[in-house]
Amino acid sequence: MKINHNGVTEPSGFYACGRYTGMKYKRRDLAIVYSEVPARYAAVFTTNLVKAASVIRNKQLLNEKSLIQAIVINSGHANSCTGQQGIINNQKMAESLAKVLKLDVDSVLTASTGVIGVQLPVDIISEGIEKSFIFLSDDRQGAIDAASAIMTTDTVSKEVSAQFTIGEKLVKIGAMAKGSGMIHPNMATMLAFITTDLNISQSLLQKAMSDSIIDTYNMISVDGDTSTNDMACILANGLAGNDEITEEDDNYQAFTKALNIINIELAKMIIKDGEGATKTLETTIQGAKTKDDARILCKSIINSNLVKTAFFGEDANWGRIICAMGYSGAYMNPDGLSLMIKSRFGSVRLVENGVPLHFNEELAAEVLKGNSIEILVTLMDGDCEAKGWGCDMSYDYIRINGDYRT
Amino acid sequence: MKINHNGVTEPSGFYACGRYTGMKYKRRDLAIVYSEVPARYAAVFTTNLVKAASVIRNKQLLNEKSLIQAIVINSGHANSCTGQQGIINNQKMAESLAKVLKLDVDSVLTASTGVIGVQLPVDIISEGIEKSFIFLSDDRQGAIDAASAIMTTDTVSKEVSAQFTIGEKLVKIGAMAKGSGMIHPNMATMLAFITTDLNISQSLLQKAMSDSIIDTYNMISVDGDTSTNDMACILANGLAGNDEITEEDDNYQAFTKALNIINIELAKMIIKDGEGATKTLETTIQGAKTKDDARILCKSIINSNLVKTAFFGEDANWGRIICAMGYSGAYMNPDGLSLMIKSRFGSVRLVENGVPLHFNEELAAEVLKGNSIEILVTLMDGDCEAKGWGCDMSYDYIRINGDYRT
Repeated sequence: MKINHNGVTEPSGFYACGRYTGMKYKRRDLAIVYSEVPARYAAVFTTNLVKAASVIRNKQLLNEKSLIQAIVINSGHANSCTGQQGIINNQKMAESLAKVLKLDVDSVLTASTGVIGVQLPVDIISEGIEKSFIFLSDDRQGAIDAASAIMTTDTVSKEVSAQFTIGEKLVKIGAMAKGSGMIHPNMATMLAFITTDLNISQSLLQKAMSDSIIDTYNMISVDGDTSTNDMACILANGLAGNDEITEEDDNYQAFTKALNIINIELAKMIIKDGEGATKTLETTIQGAKTKDDARILCKSIINSNLVKTAFFGEDANWGRIICAMGYSGAYMNPDGLSLMIKSRFGSVRLVENGVPLHFNEELAAEVLKGNSIEILVTLMDGDCEAKGWGCDMSYDYIRINGDYRT
Repeated sequence: MKINHNGVTEPSGFYACGRYTGMKYKRRDLAIVYSEVPARYAAVFTTNLVKAASVIRNKQLLNEKSLIQAIVINSGHANSCTGQQGIINNQKMAESLAKVLKLDVDSVLTASTGVIGVQLPVDIISEGIEKSFIFLSDDRQGAIDAASAIMTTDTVSKEVSAQFTIGEKLVKIGAMAKGSGMIHPNMATMLAFITTDLNISQSLLQKAMSDSIIDTYNMISVDGDTSTNDMACILANGLAGNDEITEEDDNYQAFTKALNIINIELAKMIIKDGEGATKTLETTIQGAKTKDDARILCKSIINSNLVKTAFFGEDANWGRIICAMGYSGAYMNPDGLSLMIKSRFGSVRLVENGVPLHFNEELAAEVLKGNSIEILVTLMDGDCEAKGWGCDMSYDYIRINGDYRT
C-alpha cells in the first residue's frame, strides 16, 4: 500500500475547489467537492444532542439507495443552534450548489464549521457558490485549496491519500479533515471528507466507515468538548472499475486496511494541530480486562487537564496518569499496573506492578523534552489493548479559546 | 441561624493546631483536630478506583459504632499510588498521634493531600506530631493554623461555621476545607473536615452528610479531575447537650439545613480559589425533565474547557454552553431552551425558546466583566432544577499545573 499526502482529488473522477467568499476575514471559507458520476455515500455523525442543520440533513440523506455527487462546506459559521432559520439556510446552501452543477438537491451534502449560534450569511454563500464552482479541478491544487478552506483554528491543512490494488485495478482513496478544538472522542469529533474510486456496496461502505471510527477518530481528544457539527463521510464513485465489493472478502479487508490508515493519519494530524498543542501524546493500554476498558482508560488519560498540563510543563508527574485511570469508570487493578514513558530521547520506567520506582529525574526530564510522547501502561487484568491520541495543554489553548469568537 | 467564618474549634470541646514540620518548603504541613470526648463519625469518600491509603483506612473505620477522637492531616504528599508501603506509613501516622494523645489507634483518622506516588516521609511526620500536639488549642488561632496547614495549591484557607438552637441548647458547627485543583463533581472532590457539638445518632449523621454532598460538593468543578484522596468527614461530639437526635424530626431538619449551608459555603470557597480562576460561574438549570438531568446539564457546562476559556476571555460565546449541554448525556429539548447571563453589572438574554437573540454585544461585554457570573438556563422539559458552581480557565491554570510537582 502506498501512502501519500494528496487529498480528495486523488481518486479518479473527483474534483475540488476552495475559495474566499467574504464570510471570513481574508481566508478561504468555502469548499466544494464534486464527483463526475454519482457516488455511494456513508458517514458517521456527532453524538451531541444539539446537531447542526447540516448534520441533521446529511443524516436524513443517508440510506442504502442515496447517491451523492457533491459536497459544499463553509467555514466561519457552524449553523448550529440556529433554529428553523438555520435549517432553511442550510437547504438553500445545498440548492445553490445543486443549481449551478445541475444536480438533484438530494445528491448534495452540506457541512458547516465555525461559531455556534450565528445565522449563515446565506446570500454571501449562494453568491460564493456561483463564483466558485468554475474553479473545480481534479488536480492537486483543487484538493489543496479545499483543504485550506475548511480550516477554522487549524494552523495546518490536513490531507492524506492511499493506493492499493484489487486484482489489476488500482484503487485510490483521498481525504481531507479539519479539527483543532472541540475535539473529544465520541463518534466523529471533527470533519473528515474521504473520497475513493472504489466500487463497493453502500452497506459495506458504511460498515467499513463505522468500524474504522471506533479506534481512530473516537480515540483522540484535544479538549473533551464534542462538537455539534462533526461528521466523517466517504464518497465512493466506483471509477476504479473493480467488481463491486458486496461481501467481507479479501478485497473488503484491503479497503478497510487502507481506510484505517487514512483515518488514523487524519486523527493524528488533528491532534498534532490541537489548539495550543506543543506535544502529542500517544497512550497505549495493554493487558486490560476488556477492549472497552482499554479504550476508556486511554481516553481518560488523554482527556485529563492535569495530565495535559504536566506534559506541557515537562514534569514526570505520573500520579496524575494513574489518577485519571482510576476515575475513568473502567475496571483496572492498580496493583498490577506498570507505567513507562518514551520519546525519541529515550524511555523511563515509572511504576512496576503497582509500585513506584525510584527513577532518574534527569533522564525523565530528557525524555519529556520530546514533542511526541508515548505513554505505555501495562495491566495484569486480561489481554485487551487500545491506543489513544491527545496533546498537551498550553497557555496558547487559553489564548486561542479566550479569544475565538471575536 | 448565624453564619460565621470561624473554623473547626467553634463547637464545644474541639481543639486544633497546624504546624510546619519540614515536609513542605517553609509552609505549614501538618494539622491535628482533636475532640476532648469521643465523637460520632460520618464521611463520604472519593469514587476514584485508586484510593489513597488514608481513604482506604478511614473507610474501614466508618461504621455505626466507631467513635473518633482525633484527625491528623498532612499536606505535600498524597500517599496515593504508594502500594503496601503507603498503607504501612499511613498506619504509622495514626499510631504516632494515638500514642501522644493516649488514644486507641482506631479512634484516629488520617488524611493526606499533595503529590501522588511519593512515599510519606513518615519519620518527619512522627517527629512533627510529637512536637505539634502540645499546640492543640480550642481557640480561633488553632482553627486558623489547621486550615492553613492543609492547603496545597490553595491561595486562601477555607473556614466556615454556623450556630442554631435545639430547644434551649445552642449547637455549633465548624468546618475547614482545602481544594483548588483536581476538583470534579463526583462524591466529595476535596478534603473537608466538619466538627459539631451536636448529639446525633451515627446513622442520621451519615445520612445528613451523604444527602448534603449531592447538591454541594458534587456540584462543583475546577478541572474535571477527581482526586484519589478526597473526603468530607464530620465529627459530632454531643457536647451541646441536646437530647440525641434519632429520627428525621424538626431538630434533624435544623441540623441538615445548617450542614447544607456549611457545605455550600465551603464548596463555593473552593471554586473561588480554583487554580488560576479569575471568575466564578454559577449555573442554574430550571425546567429540566428530572433532577438528575438538571444536575448533569449543570456539571457539563461548568466542566467544559471551552465554556471556561470563553468566560476567561469575557466572550459571550453562548454556543459553547448549549454545545456542552448537548453532549452531556442528559435529556433536553434545545428548541425550548432559554439562556441568560447575569453579573453585578447587569444581565443579558442570549437565547429565547431555542432561538438566538440579537443581543447588545456591549452590554454583554459589560456583564462579563463581573468576577461572579450567573448562567441561567430555562428548559421546557419539566419542573426540575439544579445549581452548579465552577470557575473560568486562565493562563494561570496552565502555569500552576505545568509546574506543580517540582
